[in-house]
Amino acid sequence: MADFELIKYLHTPAETKIVHLILDGLGGLPRELDGKTELEAANTPNLDALAARSQLGLAVPVRPGVTPGSGPAHLSLFGYDPLEYDVGRGVLAALGIGFDLHPEDVAARGNFCTVDESGLITDRRAGRIPTEFGQKLTALLREIELPSIQAYVETVKEYRFVLVLRPTAGQTLYADIADTDPQRTGVPSLPAVAEDEASEATAQLANDWIAAARAILRDHEPANSLNLRGFAKDPGFPKFPDVYGLRAAAIATYPMYKGVAKLVGMDVVPVDGEALEDEVEALRACWDEYDYFFFHVKKTDSAGEDGDFERKAEVIEHVDEAVVPAIMDLGPDVLIVTGDHSTPAALKSHSWHPVPTLLWSRVGSWDGMEEFGERACGRGSLGVFPASDEMQLALGYALRLNKYGA
Amino acid sequence: MADFELIKYLHTPAETKIVHLILDGLGGLPRELDGKTELEAANTPNLDALAARSQLGLAVPVRPGVTPGSGPAHLSLFGYDPLEYDVGRGVLAALGIGFDLHPEDVAARGNFCTVDESGLITDRRAGRIPTEFGQKLTALLREIELPSIQAYVETVKEYRFVLVLRPTAGQTLYADIADTDPQRTGVPSLPAVAEDEASEATAQLANDWIAAARAILRDHEPANSLNLRGFAKDPGFPKFPDVYGLRAAAIATYPMYKGVAKLVGMDVVPVDGEALEDEVEALRACWDEYDYFFFHVKKTDSAGEDGDFERKAEVIEHVDEAVVPAIMDLGPDVLIVTGDHSTPAALKSHSWHPVPTLLWSRVGSWDGMEEFGERACGRGSLGVFPASDEMQLALGYALRLNKYGA
Repeated sequence: MADFELIKYLHTPAETKIVHLILDGLGGLPRELDGKTELEAANTPNLDALAARSQLGLAVPVRPGVTPGSGPAHLSLFGYDPLEYDVGRGVLAALGIGFDLHPEDVAARGNFCTVDESGLITDRRAGRIPTEFGQKLTALLREIELPSIQAYVETVKEYRFVLVLRPTAGQTLYADIADTDPQRTGVPSLPAVAEDEASEATAQLANDWIAAARAILRDHEPANSLNLRGFAKDPGFPKFPDVYGLRAAAIATYPMYKGVAKLVGMDVVPVDGEALEDEVEALRACWDEYDYFFFHVKKTDSAGEDGDFERKAEVIEHVDEAVVPAIMDLGPDVLIVTGDHSTPAALKSHSWHPVPTLLWSRVGSWDGMEEFGERACGRGSLGVFPASDEMQLALGYALRLNKYGA
Repeated sequence: MADFELIKYLHTPAETKIVHLILDGLGGLPRELDGKTELEAANTPNLDALAARSQLGLAVPVRPGVTPGSGPAHLSLFGYDPLEYDVGRGVLAALGIGFDLHPEDVAARGNFCTVDESGLITDRRAGRIPTEFGQKLTALLREIELPSIQAYVETVKEYRFVLVLRPTAGQTLYADIADTDPQRTGVPSLPAVAEDEASEATAQLANDWIAAARAILRDHEPANSLNLRGFAKDPGFPKFPDVYGLRAAAIATYPMYKGVAKLVGMDVVPVDGEALEDEVEALRACWDEYDYFFFHVKKTDSAGEDGDFERKAEVIEHVDEAVVPAIMDLGPDVLIVTGDHSTPAALKSHSWHPVPTLLWSRVGSWDGMEEFGERACGRGSLGVFPASDEMQLALGYALRLNKYGA
């Protein structure tokens, strides 16, 4: 029995509420100054007090030593092993910009590129044109018409865009189509080749669109051509509310995280603003309607990516002050505080380091640690565990699983 | 995706260097005197200083509670789960004596035994004849000729030997052949029976060889017969350099460890002498040519097997003085110090106890423990983990894995 089958079989209705507070890129590395990480250096009286009455541990996002992107890392927190539940790059790109992807759509990532007179690629990223230029070009590409297909084109950033093909009723598109990007310069682009018979018609549509697009781009150097890759459809994962028996709300301000939540079937609730206080307000507003709350904090990751140790610590302090007490005031039954992965300021990037994690529950044990930090979590009673176990733990601690066996 | 597939997909070239320092049988048990293990009792200022800036944990060699042999234990350290990557006993025996096994060879373990006049086995180990007597007998058995097959016979120790059948070009041998040893006395030996059709010709060759050998041994009581078991071929495992993208060097002085390293495709570099200092010299000599270094220390295990607590502690002290600083002077990016299994002096044998492990890296966290020992490792942030995760961790900490997913 896969664990999803087990959980579906065991879960039982209850009045309890679970909050999953995700500080994006929470985990950090010690600085030379005092050997403290961002989380350890931050002044967090509320999290520290909670830690004393919680169990602590270190969560492994995907696999030991493996650095995850945001998509796989969040799937793992939601209990979907990202190596088993694979989301195509095109779908992730569409989710990342908040595109309202339908199950029947085929999405692909696009790059504007530069080609010479004989059609050989000279720059795969079109000299990294500014986003504004990219937006001007995608506006032109929206004019392309395909028979009985809607083609959506959306700028991501600079030379990157997303193409979404949406069929009309009765038609089915397939996405087993090879990349047109040869991944090197000095060679021509490849055609969009179907990798199975079912995908042949869709590949032909893609090639028609590409031909029309290249005709439009011809005089727009350095973005005088384009390539598509990562053709994919919504993978149709088991839905979070069905698997866990939870009415699930996602509270996030960035498109990527709303997109992943939508992909697993959570309700994305509206947040009026981008501040932590706005997210807290959204949590309060929907508290009575849901059992599970995915609460996403973006700015820890952004500060880590910028290599700004102090700012990352300050974001954590802000969460400690503005979010943690507000959540506890609502009276949850389980609160998990963690990250989707580490983003140490020292590395200025996502990393593989396991993520400090706190599990508080009305029926939980207490490790009695005096603070919430990497070192305390490294000695905690949750041990080093797969992040994909968190949902199952949360259900148990929320008294939402029946006994297995007599 | 199996983890080998994942790692093959993610690994990326880098200039970083990884040292895997294996103290064979490192783990120990506390003595009554002061409750310290061999590692804790040893005076190890260098390892202790390193521990303060490292992550510690306890590695489970194969499975909880399971005591591994040297072959499986090392395969696990190299990332090959020994339950999945099974090496036949015949191959392990050939590797153990440093035999240059070819991929097309079939190897079997042999035992001299004693039989009575009616051919019933009276002693399965021929009264444990001395090694010299065994060597005299194997010399006689080398005279046996088989049509278009080369048969190699090598003494292991006392009544034990290895038989290797090597085909001529164009011929293929198969090794699904049952043991001839009935594992008890008072019964006759069994014939070498093929367990599939492909192995029938090879089984016939083995029976021909056995008949010729028994004719030669007839008057050499108590070794007047023999049995073969564990027929096997090189299992053709995925190669370490391909899986991990690492140029890998093995530095070891005992045949067994060189053999296992060769089995997974490492280069076994020459060591001029048997002392730790000679191994360090070999490490220095090949430092620029490789990315990964398996550095094997044998004598911790030998002392443990002898039940000599003090000597085992002294070997550890010698490693601390002569090996650890020399490695750090070379400027590695990742150093893992561990053992393949435990060999507590108190047990005088390999054991199942998880193995103290230290992971130091330029981009690692610090547990801040004050010493390298079983108790400190039991509280470390690596937790209790499968030894087969070490390579994946090493690659992560050596910045040799791309991000998984966007």
